[in-house]
Amino acid sequence: MPGQGMLILLSGPSGSGKGTVCSRLINTLRGIRLSVSATTRQPRPGEVHGRDYYFMSREEFEKLTGEGGFLEWAPIYGYLYGTPAGPVREALSRGEDVILEIDVQGGLQVKEHFPDAVLIFLIPPSRSALQSRLMARGTESQPEIEKRMLWADTELGFIPRYDYVLVNDRISDTVAVVRCIVEAERSRSARFRLPQDW
Amino acid sequence: MPGQGMLILLSGPSGSGKGTVCSRLINTLRGIRLSVSATTRQPRPGEVHGRDYYFMSREEFEKLTGEGGFLEWAPIYGYLYGTPAGPVREALSRGEDVILEIDVQGGLQVKEHFPDAVLIFLIPPSRSALQSRLMARGTESQPEIEKRMLWADTELGFIPRYDYVLVNDRISDTVAVVRCIVEAERSRSARFRLPQDW
Repeated sequence: MPGQGMLILLSGPSGSGKGTVCSRLINTLRGIRLSVSATTRQPRPGEVHGRDYYFMSREEFEKLTGEGGFLEWAPIYGYLYGTPAGPVREALSRGEDVILEIDVQGGLQVKEHFPDAVLIFLIPPSRSALQSRLMARGTESQPEIEKRMLWADTELGFIPRYDYVLVNDRISDTVAVVRCIVEAERSRSARFRLPQDW
Repeated sequence: MPGQGMLILLSGPSGSGKGTVCSRLINTLRGIRLSVSATTRQPRPGEVHGRDYYFMSREEFEKLTGEGGFLEWAPIYGYLYGTPAGPVREALSRGEDVILEIDVQGGLQVKEHFPDAVLIFLIPPSRSALQSRLMARGTESQPEIEKRMLWADTELGFIPRYDYVLVNDRISDTVAVVRCIVEAERSRSARFRLPQDW
């Protein structure tokens, strides 16, 4: 019988690159699945329902909230975002590891349900790099970018409640370190069972 | 100014392969140095003074003990083994990481001096694999091998006091995971300082 899987939360300010890191990680690491979030915002070009997000109407989202169907949910920049609870719990109990890309406050909420979750905080290399990334994305207005910059400063204050912090400078380096964190955490003595032939 | 380096302790029963893992690790990971232990036992074929061990007479060893020159020391199978304190403290304060190959009890002693040390426990894949390795080494008599097997059982009881446990089946896999543990621990939020341009 497999043990319980491990829950990894990858958080960081909007523009920290957590989405890219997550999708690259999934492609290079075995035994781990990505938790797909639900959102009421519109899909960005190239985003696919069920892969990038479950895109929902506000009505659908609020119905699921009422049924206790989210591990956490929050309004972010005027839209609702949430983590459907069912798929995460099912994967963990099958012994699969699950990684969750999530905003900072949401990460801390999930940690309350899963005290053993591994929390990774991603920051862009500098304030100016964050600003450039948000502008290059071209999906937010200038006032919205400024709001996100201010919010990023607040979020950095939560770093001490995270287990790991990575400066996301070169994406390939960041992915390599996240992989290492997962590998290392799989070897934690708290998760260890002595093989039968001992 | 560099922060304080990190101390990693690699422990395991005699025959777990910790020596081989350590020397391979040192050759493939940058920014880490191996702490060289002192011992009163005779060099095995191929072992070099100052690289594998500081080989000392019992008189020299006891003199250094009296001067508080060891982080830990212990009699093991009739010989004295110890970790000279000076080189470890100096490397750490220069911001270098130090890895220490050490028996299980010694590792726990060092942890008392360095509460932030990262403890890794290495076990052979099975009891029979351990026995084969000790026999293949050809340096211990049959009664001595039996003594080490019994002692290994006692040592396994200390696993919960270690941070990580690795089953040393394929040496290259083990080295890869130890590298990951070092990389992951370097990204611990407790060791993190926000870059200046934030």
